[in-house]
Amino acid sequence: MTDIPALFASKADELVAFAHHLAELARAEIRPHFRTGFDVISKADASPVTIADRNAEAVMRKAIEARYPEHGIFGEEFGPVRSDAAWQWILDPIDGTKSFVSGLPIFGTLIALTFENRPVLGVIDQPIMADRWIGAAGRPTEFNGKPARTNAQRGLSDAVLMTTYVDSFSEAELAAFTKLRKACRINRMSGDCIAYGMLASGFADIAMDGRMQPYDYAALVPVITGAGGVITDWEGQPLDMRGRSRALAAANPALHQAAMEYLSGV
Amino acid sequence: MTDIPALFASKADELVAFAHHLAELARAEIRPHFRTGFDVISKADASPVTIADRNAEAVMRKAIEARYPEHGIFGEEFGPVRSDAAWQWILDPIDGTKSFVSGLPIFGTLIALTFENRPVLGVIDQPIMADRWIGAAGRPTEFNGKPARTNAQRGLSDAVLMTTYVDSFSEAELAAFTKLRKACRINRMSGDCIAYGMLASGFADIAMDGRMQPYDYAALVPVITGAGGVITDWEGQPLDMRGRSRALAAANPALHQAAMEYLSGV
Repeated sequence: MTDIPALFASKADELVAFAHHLAELARAEIRPHFRTGFDVISKADASPVTIADRNAEAVMRKAIEARYPEHGIFGEEFGPVRSDAAWQWILDPIDGTKSFVSGLPIFGTLIALTFENRPVLGVIDQPIMADRWIGAAGRPTEFNGKPARTNAQRGLSDAVLMTTYVDSFSEAELAAFTKLRKACRINRMSGDCIAYGMLASGFADIAMDGRMQPYDYAALVPVITGAGGVITDWEGQPLDMRGRSRALAAANPALHQAAMEYLSGV
Repeated sequence: MTDIPALFASKADELVAFAHHLAELARAEIRPHFRTGFDVISKADASPVTIADRNAEAVMRKAIEARYPEHGIFGEEFGPVRSDAAWQWILDPIDGTKSFVSGLPIFGTLIALTFENRPVLGVIDQPIMADRWIGAAGRPTEFNGKPARTNAQRGLSDAVLMTTYVDSFSEAELAAFTKLRKACRINRMSGDCIAYGMLASGFADIAMDGRMQPYDYAALVPVITGAGGVITDWEGQPLDMRGRSRALAAANPALHQAAMEYLSGV
């Protein structure tokens, strides 16, 4: 990236350390609730996933308020504060609630920092596996403290394709996805944000989802980009940090282009 | 179960302990290869998944040969020995190779013991999470040393449905599965054997797959049954330990019946 805000570069060490701290705080709130109770997702209930979700966001918000009181915060659970600030923390404490309630350790905590609506820092954290990807503008993405790289050579017919929930697709989107799926080598269809982490680490090659909110994808951008991958919407445009987008990430530019041929215009 | 072979009951403690030992041996072979290399599944290659698969089966076979030289063994990787013996160990060192190569910790090692073609002992082991379900005829299923129970009350509209790989379904199977999926509350579509473990623990309610071999389902039977669940083929018949079957497991008999209405006759 050539457009790294100078302000971010000068504060990157501090902000990366703080993002790790936020992820640790969220882990501590989430772990005790995993595989407790038998509640199917029900936001209205005091179900384990709802408690974990809210407590994790609350503890991260409190830490941000104390350390960066001038920064904005937008969280999946509690909405926005200071939405006109240049720096915005975008939080999704449990991305993948369906996996959480099903006892599968493939959900994640998403933490992003945007500067003037550009994502400059992103964390994907899996609290149970203790897996963490962190990407920061101008730096190589790290997975558990080591550099993560996408598979620069992978072509479509050898690709591992991941998505999260086919029921979220429209009929046309499902048809396009199905064609793309059949052009790839193998697929996993319940990936949540971990799909994008595995892409950053070279174990998945295409990850895509429809109907996403900024808190679903803001954190993914620095992680994927810093690992050598490409992430845009299905039309090849930057993901919209103020609206909704459908994300398409790929391990390399040629693979991204090949996948987009199935998805653009749908 | 009222038909527990007396021979099994008298040797159950020893056999359960030995099954734990086999799972530990397999874990040690599998863990070092997880998330190494970028190989998409290719049985012909010396890919990490192939090496882990073969080494894990080899070490379990060696232990069985030493301890129970009169028992038969059927493994997914190396085929049968002493296939006329009354006792048969049925091994699938890595069930869920697609998840393994994708870096997702939802594959598992399956270990079963059958007596006269009836599964009397089953292990589902997740080497990375160190999660282990063990079921033995006449005993309550254990998950990580504690009793596991299915959700006895769950009805279809609240159910969590899991399957492994929709591309393995025929067109008619996919249509039936899709109808059932839409009747359930949520689904996860890349569950592998872990889906059946989560069902035993009450976090999934229906788990089903098509085109399975005995080494894919023999271990599931004692685990599901000992946790209060029901597992049969899609027609409600016992799974065939000498052929192929399509497995349908459910958390309770009423739910199993409700799911079978979508699947039988397909």
